[in-house]
Amino acid sequence: MANIGFIGLGIMGKPMAGHLIKGGHRLFLHSRSGVPKDLLALGGEDFSSPRLVAQHADVIITMLPDTPDVEKVLFAENGIVEGLQSQASSAKIIIDMSSISPLKTRQFAERIVQLGCDYVDAPVSGGDVGAQNATLTIMVGASSAVFERIKPILGLMGKTVTHVGENGAGQICKVANQIIVSSTIEAVAEALLFASKAGADPEKVRQALLGGFAASRVLEVHGERMIQRRFEPGFRIELHQKDLDIALESASALGVSLPNTATVRELFSACLAHGGAKWDNSAIVKMLEKLANHEIQKYPE
Amino acid sequence: MANIGFIGLGIMGKPMAGHLIKGGHRLFLHSRSGVPKDLLALGGEDFSSPRLVAQHADVIITMLPDTPDVEKVLFAENGIVEGLQSQASSAKIIIDMSSISPLKTRQFAERIVQLGCDYVDAPVSGGDVGAQNATLTIMVGASSAVFERIKPILGLMGKTVTHVGENGAGQICKVANQIIVSSTIEAVAEALLFASKAGADPEKVRQALLGGFAASRVLEVHGERMIQRRFEPGFRIELHQKDLDIALESASALGVSLPNTATVRELFSACLAHGGAKWDNSAIVKMLEKLANHEIQKYPE
Repeated sequence: MANIGFIGLGIMGKPMAGHLIKGGHRLFLHSRSGVPKDLLALGGEDFSSPRLVAQHADVIITMLPDTPDVEKVLFAENGIVEGLQSQASSAKIIIDMSSISPLKTRQFAERIVQLGCDYVDAPVSGGDVGAQNATLTIMVGASSAVFERIKPILGLMGKTVTHVGENGAGQICKVANQIIVSSTIEAVAEALLFASKAGADPEKVRQALLGGFAASRVLEVHGERMIQRRFEPGFRIELHQKDLDIALESASALGVSLPNTATVRELFSACLAHGGAKWDNSAIVKMLEKLANHEIQKYPE
Repeated sequence: MANIGFIGLGIMGKPMAGHLIKGGHRLFLHSRSGVPKDLLALGGEDFSSPRLVAQHADVIITMLPDTPDVEKVLFAENGIVEGLQSQASSAKIIIDMSSISPLKTRQFAERIVQLGCDYVDAPVSGGDVGAQNATLTIMVGASSAVFERIKPILGLMGKTVTHVGENGAGQICKVANQIIVSSTIEAVAEALLFASKAGADPEKVRQALLGGFAASRVLEVHGERMIQRRFEPGFRIELHQKDLDIALESASALGVSLPNTATVRELFSACLAHGGAKWDNSAIVKMLEKLANHEIQKYPE
């Protein structure tokens, strides 16, 4: 069993670290806001800095909100790199499971590799429910050799662990995921709103469409939320917005135009303007409803 | 077995009429471009006008390209209505299986009902392959009583026959379908193009995403076409463009804004400008590729 560091113990990181402890690993924990007591009760050990975690662990996992947070934990004073440098470095592995910029990820990986260590980007989808049930989808960017070594660890936290490619490929895949999911939600919102305002039963329409080429997980899950008017997350708009910012910034740097992703981002932005930071991403329909001066209505029996 | 009229025997109508003959019905056929010989060989009967078809048949099916075609076949000289009026009208049923405007459909239905007949809108999805294999998805707008009477006939042509609601609801559902399908194709195109230009293997990304919330029939089928660069239809861009024109015109009349559908329509329009009328709708990716100055590439092994 491995000595694993885990930095970032929020709504996602906390249950993920718990699964690793229950899987028999020794866990060295750090969180800006303090290590949750139940992880300590399970046997996790509290460390006061990323540097100390990196000194003691062989595999160091980060699960943080955004690109600058990861950069700081890696490279700032008392950060992971200081811990790696303080020892005869024995090929430790850094696994960043946050959802951050794929282009920055490649830079981070280069700097870590230069220290004689390995870097893995392994962002997840599946949200807090997936984290709690260890059913996350994990998209991995790493060399094949490193992927094989860490696969059993990732397997304790996720149901589907896919090796997408070299460093950066995991984050690229996550960006692709967030583009498709958000645009599909917006498309379902346009379609159900149109159907409702035209006078059809949106639930009947949704059912009919699930049998054909319009079928998707989003039509199943988010389509139902729109009709039932249930907008508690799920996945919060403020987080999806952040992911689309990463998508659009990266696309801009690469010279790729993402016209519909840009519109979806603006509609999320409108949700934030209406106090919707913590609404589920399916609530994007509310902004289209404002434009149409009509809400999706349950159809009379 | 019923006496069924069938008007419009193109790439869709011809195999659909064939299934009805093989199902034991007597078929009265009319087509502007002449009735195909193999339908006559099966036992179909050739009539020289929609009026004559409507005089002899009890159920009259139309399968035509666009709203004005249906309007003409119904109401112009030698049209269906003249045939209905020439007799003591015995509650004949008009079934329009074309994909046309839901708002015009309601007007057509009112005029037919005023003659003492029944009107059904029953557009399909599934394309020419679905028509040939009798696996179409059929979305029906009709009263419950009429739906029960015609369900066995529709069942000879389709696998899924859904009663969505009253007149117009079938066409509303078809519009919703075309909105979702086209926007999902565009979203998959944005995501795979981004992944490819960022240097990841688009096929690995597609595979990884099929396990999560980005999963859809479109990611399976159209995503693969984009990566394999196979753009033969499938469903032709000129037809999908027409369906989005119906969506946007109807939405405009209803006061609903469809921002991403509008962008997708413009990208289809760009495909037409590049000679892509008969490309598969997945070829929308080519226009995003022009903007990015990069084509999705198969990844080296």
